Amino acid sequence: MIKVNFYYPNQDGAKFDHQYFNDTHIGKLVKDRWSPMGMKEFGVEKGLAGGAPGSPAPYVAAGYAVFETVEAFQAAFAAHGEEIVADIKNYTDLEPIVQISEIVT
Amino acid sequence: MIKVNFYYPNQDGAKFDHQYFNDTHIGKLVKDRWSPMGMKEFGVEKGLAGGAPGSPAPYVAAGYAVFETVEAFQAAFAAHGEEIVADIKNYTDLEPIVQISEIVT
Repeated sequence: MIKVNFYYPNQDGAKFDHQYFNDTHIGKLVKDRWSPMGMKEFGVEKGLAGGAPGSPAPYVAAGYAVFETVEAFQAAFAAHGEEIVADIKNYTDLEPIVQISEIVT
Repeated sequence: MIKVNFYYPNQDGAKFDHQYFNDTHIGKLVKDRWSPMGMKEFGVEKGLAGGAPGSPAPYVAAGYAVFETVEAFQAAFAAHGEEIVADIKNYTDLEPIVQISEIVT
């Protein structure tokens, strides 16, 4: 299984609408488009803090999607990536950092 | 519920022993110390790729631990953080980036 992570850097002055990201972007659009294409699981995190006392969270928010294989994600992205990426501007002016990982444990 | 993420930046020339990280650091040390202190779940990821075709993973590996509250994590870290941090040198010379997040979905 692989996990595709989307990290939104915590930048001063950037906008991020957590409710839209959670309810509409991930909870509706991504879920509706990618679940029938093999997405096994998805999740949303809201940044609270960094590791050092009083330090800010490196990421204001993060989302992830789990697929069986990289190829399954690529097929889902090829089919619906354009629509999903076009929706990002509705909740943030940040560009997500993308990390594709193997789920080891 | 909150998730504490540990991201290891993918740096040229750095060492990272995935097997030790997975089996011994997380699978044994962190599990043994933090499960009795309220750790609900943990996980390990191995970086495969970035988002752009052919791009490297931003993180060579990542681990996470789920607790009920930030306070529960802080108590677990206060009790065993020193021993756990001291073990990092056994699998990497990288310093993890720490992100504490609220689990929204």
